[in-house]
Amino acid sequence: MPGQRPGDRPTLEAVAARAGVSRATASRVVNGGDGVRTHLVDRVREAVRDLGYVPNPAARTLVTRRTGAVAVIIAEPEIRIFSDPFFSRQVRGISKELTAHDTQLVLLLVEDRGDYDRIERYLAGGHVDGALAFSLHTDDPLPAIARRIGMPTVYGGRPGWTAGPGDHSEVTYVDADNRGGAREAVRYLLDGGRQRIAHIAGPLDQTSAADRLSGYRDVLPDADPALVAEGDFTVAGGARAMAELLDRGGPIDAVFAANDLMATGALRILRERGRTVPGDMALVGFDDAEQVAQSADPPLTTVRQDIEGMGRLMVRLLLGTLDAARSDGGGEAPGSVVTATSLVRRGSA
Amino acid sequence: MPGQRPGDRPTLEAVAARAGVSRATASRVVNGGDGVRTHLVDRVREAVRDLGYVPNPAARTLVTRRTGAVAVIIAEPEIRIFSDPFFSRQVRGISKELTAHDTQLVLLLVEDRGDYDRIERYLAGGHVDGALAFSLHTDDPLPAIARRIGMPTVYGGRPGWTAGPGDHSEVTYVDADNRGGAREAVRYLLDGGRQRIAHIAGPLDQTSAADRLSGYRDVLPDADPALVAEGDFTVAGGARAMAELLDRGGPIDAVFAANDLMATGALRILRERGRTVPGDMALVGFDDAEQVAQSADPPLTTVRQDIEGMGRLMVRLLLGTLDAARSDGGGEAPGSVVTATSLVRRGSA
Repeated sequence: MPGQRPGDRPTLEAVAARAGVSRATASRVVNGGDGVRTHLVDRVREAVRDLGYVPNPAARTLVTRRTGAVAVIIAEPEIRIFSDPFFSRQVRGISKELTAHDTQLVLLLVEDRGDYDRIERYLAGGHVDGALAFSLHTDDPLPAIARRIGMPTVYGGRPGWTAGPGDHSEVTYVDADNRGGAREAVRYLLDGGRQRIAHIAGPLDQTSAADRLSGYRDVLPDADPALVAEGDFTVAGGARAMAELLDRGGPIDAVFAANDLMATGALRILRERGRTVPGDMALVGFDDAEQVAQSADPPLTTVRQDIEGMGRLMVRLLLGTLDAARSDGGGEAPGSVVTATSLVRRGSA
Repeated sequence: MPGQRPGDRPTLEAVAARAGVSRATASRVVNGGDGVRTHLVDRVREAVRDLGYVPNPAARTLVTRRTGAVAVIIAEPEIRIFSDPFFSRQVRGISKELTAHDTQLVLLLVEDRGDYDRIERYLAGGHVDGALAFSLHTDDPLPAIARRIGMPTVYGGRPGWTAGPGDHSEVTYVDADNRGGAREAVRYLLDGGRQRIAHIAGPLDQTSAADRLSGYRDVLPDADPALVAEGDFTVAGGARAMAELLDRGGPIDAVFAANDLMATGALRILRERGRTVPGDMALVGFDDAEQVAQSADPPLTTVRQDIEGMGRLMVRLLLGTLDAARSDGGGEAPGSVVTATSLVRRGSA
């Protein structure tokens, strides 16, 4: 491999000369500072492009105290990240917003607990300015790591150790109104005349799953516990939970599944067992990410959350925190945000 | 957000004291050096765990000259990365192998050309020791960037600017024998008595697609050009190409699609147009990643490449280069590797 040859690199002086501006002006543009007129910004950027100039990262960091990169940590095995469109949608929102702020997205995957030591070293190594973390489980070590190394972090989904949606004191998170969305789904099934409504829950060590179960119970406080089965947010888990519910033998005329993937797994089992949807059984999912709900047969009635928008919001909250920390040396955790959900009516209920 | 409080951190001295070893021994273990007996390594690691010790990254870098992280750059929009199981499979192989070497995987996504300036800054910033890049297109700026900043890089798939599989002089890559695999697929269709064999090619600015087309032409040098349609490695692109082939009106009794996703798109169109598979039309795909080929109806005969193994191999070649560079200050590009493919026979041909 060829070695690094710093002598070959164009200097900031060369950029300034080509753009016809002072070195200080060129430096301000290159390092993202304010107060340079637009036409000069354009000229400097053109010179940077023409010369193939790469800023000296150490100098850049001294000026801006930033690496220009943000870590995105998804606390799920890679196999789930690639198969659940929720994650691609969330990453898309984050990616778009970071790009709009010329910030590099650095995706860190967590296969198992043993990976956290290495992730902590990387985060502590000054390679990123902040972190976005989502799909945490209640006993996830990440929040403790972020606190220990002082890494500004915004969470996607309410972390499990906070007291509830009202506790904004310690962490910043962006979440959907999981409980409200679940209530709307169950009420819709009730209003449609369904009387024995089952729930396929997600993994209850995640607050999104727990909150959706709470919403179900808000509307049906006296529901038979045999009407609830726990899945794991995958198609296979939804199929297993549906089979379990049917095998218990009690009458069921509707199912609210805590996400669309589990709802499609439930659909498969219902078809195998000769139950028609929505005739024999009404079915409602949750997410409305990508094609899953729309391309199901029949298309799924579901609770839509603005997944991409939540990703963008996480970025804006994090960059806001970093800006605040830069200007006054401290910076406070901004308030967390819970975004609204909406019921999308399709053929399954 | 809480600030970073270095005073709170346990020191290396504390680790050494707890483990009952010298500071030098503790340092060697923490920084990955050799020559420490196993039971002492275990004691130091236990002390590190118990105390929650985080190595000082700057000191660590001085000792090892490494960040302990490797960038994985996929030159495809995020929507393709998440929908094509080829990528998840490749990332899985890379992830497993990096984990086995306690090295952090840092995934960088490339949405469009404009992202490369930022990626160059990040790579030049000393945040990773090397890079793995795959799914490059012929005019991809990444190889020039890697050369300019002296970043050791191993490519997944033969980069387009090399003269051919024989030219190993400049870059290191791991590839499947795309041309040989394609030849085997087409010969299998010929041996099955098929006479008008069409090809749905991938995007021809990628060498994997170009090499598979070359393999098709090796076996059928006189094939009617109207038997070849270009897709884009997606389901929708395969469907479009299949429709185009049928609309051209010439007789076709077999299709070799350059990947499994396009083959499933072709299947859909054939079903819509009332053509049976394999009765009216034999169909062969390429990849055999995850569930795509197996869960198609009928299951796809396809050319299997060892995608996960290629990912692992890329990591081993890169880490070998980094080790060589460390020990003699230079290091040469190791030879590239082309791995064998094999035909998997299922129902579609």
